[in-house]
Amino acid sequence: MKSNLQRHRQKYTPKLPNIFVKSSDRAVAEVVKIKQKKTTSMENSDVLVELFPHTYDKPAVSIVKGKSVEKKLCVGVVLSGGQAPGGHNVIAGLFAALKQRNNSSQLLGFLGGPSGLINNRYIVIDEIVIEQFKNSGGFDMIQSGRTKLDNTEDFKKIATNCTAAGINAIVIIGGDDSNTNAALLAEWVLTNQVPLQVIGVPKTIDGDLKNDMIEVSFGFDTACKVYSELIGNIAKDANSARKYWHFIKLMGRSASHITLECALNIQPNIAIIAEEVSQRRMSLKQVAHIIVDSIVKRAQVGNNFGIVLIPEGLIEFIPEVGKLIAEINDMLGTNSKEFAALNENQHIDWVQSHLTPQSNLVFADLPIHIAKQMLMDRDQHGNVNVSAIETEKLLIEVVKQDLTKLKSQGKYLSQFSAISHFFGYEGRSAYPSNFDADYCYALGFTAVSLIYSGLTSYMCCIKNMHLPVSDWKPFGIPLVSMMDIEKRKGVNKPVIKKALVNLDGKPFARLKANRDNWAIDSDYISPGPIQYFGPTELSDSTPVSLQLENK
Amino acid sequence: MKSNLQRHRQKYTPKLPNIFVKSSDRAVAEVVKIKQKKTTSMENSDVLVELFPHTYDKPAVSIVKGKSVEKKLCVGVVLSGGQAPGGHNVIAGLFAALKQRNNSSQLLGFLGGPSGLINNRYIVIDEIVIEQFKNSGGFDMIQSGRTKLDNTEDFKKIATNCTAAGINAIVIIGGDDSNTNAALLAEWVLTNQVPLQVIGVPKTIDGDLKNDMIEVSFGFDTACKVYSELIGNIAKDANSARKYWHFIKLMGRSASHITLECALNIQPNIAIIAEEVSQRRMSLKQVAHIIVDSIVKRAQVGNNFGIVLIPEGLIEFIPEVGKLIAEINDMLGTNSKEFAALNENQHIDWVQSHLTPQSNLVFADLPIHIAKQMLMDRDQHGNVNVSAIETEKLLIEVVKQDLTKLKSQGKYLSQFSAISHFFGYEGRSAYPSNFDADYCYALGFTAVSLIYSGLTSYMCCIKNMHLPVSDWKPFGIPLVSMMDIEKRKGVNKPVIKKALVNLDGKPFARLKANRDNWAIDSDYISPGPIQYFGPTELSDSTPVSLQLENK
Repeated sequence: MKSNLQRHRQKYTPKLPNIFVKSSDRAVAEVVKIKQKKTTSMENSDVLVELFPHTYDKPAVSIVKGKSVEKKLCVGVVLSGGQAPGGHNVIAGLFAALKQRNNSSQLLGFLGGPSGLINNRYIVIDEIVIEQFKNSGGFDMIQSGRTKLDNTEDFKKIATNCTAAGINAIVIIGGDDSNTNAALLAEWVLTNQVPLQVIGVPKTIDGDLKNDMIEVSFGFDTACKVYSELIGNIAKDANSARKYWHFIKLMGRSASHITLECALNIQPNIAIIAEEVSQRRMSLKQVAHIIVDSIVKRAQVGNNFGIVLIPEGLIEFIPEVGKLIAEINDMLGTNSKEFAALNENQHIDWVQSHLTPQSNLVFADLPIHIAKQMLMDRDQHGNVNVSAIETEKLLIEVVKQDLTKLKSQGKYLSQFSAISHFFGYEGRSAYPSNFDADYCYALGFTAVSLIYSGLTSYMCCIKNMHLPVSDWKPFGIPLVSMMDIEKRKGVNKPVIKKALVNLDGKPFARLKANRDNWAIDSDYISPGPIQYFGPTELSDSTPVSLQLENK
Repeated sequence: MKSNLQRHRQKYTPKLPNIFVKSSDRAVAEVVKIKQKKTTSMENSDVLVELFPHTYDKPAVSIVKGKSVEKKLCVGVVLSGGQAPGGHNVIAGLFAALKQRNNSSQLLGFLGGPSGLINNRYIVIDEIVIEQFKNSGGFDMIQSGRTKLDNTEDFKKIATNCTAAGINAIVIIGGDDSNTNAALLAEWVLTNQVPLQVIGVPKTIDGDLKNDMIEVSFGFDTACKVYSELIGNIAKDANSARKYWHFIKLMGRSASHITLECALNIQPNIAIIAEEVSQRRMSLKQVAHIIVDSIVKRAQVGNNFGIVLIPEGLIEFIPEVGKLIAEINDMLGTNSKEFAALNENQHIDWVQSHLTPQSNLVFADLPIHIAKQMLMDRDQHGNVNVSAIETEKLLIEVVKQDLTKLKSQGKYLSQFSAISHFFGYEGRSAYPSNFDADYCYALGFTAVSLIYSGLTSYMCCIKNMHLPVSDWKPFGIPLVSMMDIEKRKGVNKPVIKKALVNLDGKPFARLKANRDNWAIDSDYISPGPIQYFGPTELSDSTPVSLQLENK
């Protein structure tokens, strides 16, 4: 059933870059003009050229006004991986751009993610479907999935299915992994002379699919705004009740972009950036000490409350803990039977007798139930289930230990009460902000332009997104130009490297310049919920990181 | 620092009931006309008349247009208890109504809750303070506190402080407890002939301060809208990812109004209403079975995902668990030393040897770590710390046990993965919705009308809130008319009874009529975030419960 907001959002027509606005009712006026720009210089280019003989070293392309092309096309689209606000609008943009050129063109939506391509499960997307899902959150129009397209068997099935359905091009909406696999599929298709183009669209709320060309992945803006709304509300509450420290963990296993963006929105007392922890080779105790320092200073002026932001992936970025986890994984892998034969009480002794002295110290310092959890709660490969470790609660305990010590020394005299939160699912399927709604719609148009230009193994990008939508510049970059090589079990694997928070960048600099004050002050900002109507400075606002990076 | 939303919300002028709109620039045109209505018939009226000789059996009063009164007044205001969106607007309403009549009138804000009255800590509220906090969330303008005003010593101090500051009336913004104490203070003041009026304002996001006269307490609308936004987002996500059951616990220790309102907003698969569990004397297993039944049925059509809403107070409403907790509290109270001498491993055996046979069965069925938690994690009075019991996780475990059994019998063949959430602090200090912003502003005006009419021990109320604001009817009801008597340790204590969900009411009927379908369908509604601009059906919407109760 539809909510009132959904009914009103259905009426919203996403704004388009000027280049995509039709000059007259009938004519479509954009084509791709290939600019012989050099693609980004790459490491491991010798390996990449072997893996991608057909798609290596292509130029970036920009989209400019030109002659209209109106050939009838059939395009398939697939959503891959976790939900991100705006996914439906990429599809709406594809649909509108295809129909704008040729009303007989077709858009097929493959169901349940990449597996839909393999199993040939799809629906024909029509006006009614688009109207139902336009500007709405979630991926429920065609669902998503996590099947990895990385083997010849699957590629063959996809080729057969697409040929049978008369599909000219596939648009894969996904993150770094999905776009890497899109490149593999594109290369295989060219090698085997299958007439199928493959185009990627950069999706991930984590914001780690980002580089010189990709200003921000879609979904990041909305998710950060939802989390910022909640953190801002909690900060207001903390500042009113004046008795709790809130430890708030935020999505982002591989990078701390969300934590950084939310910190710039809110001005919390503490925001831990995992990349900095890693670079400065900080220990768990040192991380806790940053928080303790703020707690003690604020207590001196009677402020026994505060806000701490923690990125989900922090634990693995702490070098000593990362090493400990690696050692445990190693020993459990080699001695799994021996370990399984022990009872629960023997586990800890056994592990301690196998760890290096340094890791033993780290392990001994962990709160006992976290140590137990590391050994008990393992993933399907038998490894420590890192995502199950409640880092926010771990930090609270280490902080408590520290404060107890300071109390016994007479250096801290107050009460410390902490409450933990974890925000993730709350933001992944929110109604896209106008920014994400417009961005995704433009990405759909960009994909269609790239397809009409006969390109393959390209990713859709938009530049100048700090400017009004009319001035946005759509273009395409070769997927392979973003790649690097990682050796996994002796085999060269191409990967699109996840973009970490740039510690020399302007968003981090803003945090760094202010955090000493924020640690002491209670100068929280409460941005409130996403607004879809009203003053454009509210309804059309863009991520702070993006604004700073373009300053 | 202010967010853009805050800057824009500062410009919002709350809408007023017609009765409070000035007829001309200078004249104020409303007074209170006392209607000799009979107050609600009460139980224990013989005890109440003894406790409240001066304030018992007063009439309800309605506010009508009349002659302007412009006497200069000094009013004190205090925020009591947990944050609720709109608190600042009650103060803004008080300020505007006072200044409208006489620009020399003063409003003093007592700091940190009721203790501010005792310690004589206050600020003079002026135009600048009001502008800064109008339409914003939180109670940070003057903070709140939980000190209970219930003894003669404190009353004396308050009288001394108020007399010294020349205060004519105190407005206490709080829940059932705070308003009970407001009545005690009012009675004491009359007995001791102190010239001080006491007026109450009904605040609580839980919605349990409600009766024939109080349609809804302020803050409930906003908090439910924030929780509904989050649940709606999660439901969208569940319906896209199709692999998780989300167990979502919502605020409401004493009543399930929030869970019911959110259920009507979202259409989740399951919404447990604690009042029904209690009335039907359901066991923990029976509650779990309701959920299991939906899981199994949905699994049959491949839907291994869903949304379950759980009220925070559920555990105490399950009669057998309530009895178990009472027994444990009793035995730990009587034998605390004996218990303390045991080690952790002996605790469970010891408790089992002291429980009644029925409670022993219940205790034995609890997941072991919940059983341990009940014994370990006790509150300051040595009682089981009920609020620390993670009911949402307890239910997940009991459901899992049930499903494992069904699996072994071949009656359930799917995968069950669950994720738990608890939403509370996220909604208590949100920017008030237009409804709460208007409601609170009108409550402030109502309080001033009651004060000018010389009334004391009255609560401010607004009727007809399902209609446009212009048609709202403000009035006052005697605090004592809402009271009942509870015997505590042999002493008669007056209380304003918490309003439970009415199982014969229309909101619950709507749930009941639909829940069999909702348990099977995935017909979730995603209401999205609170909108402050745009179409009025979005920005000025009222709680569903309120709409249904007025149908």
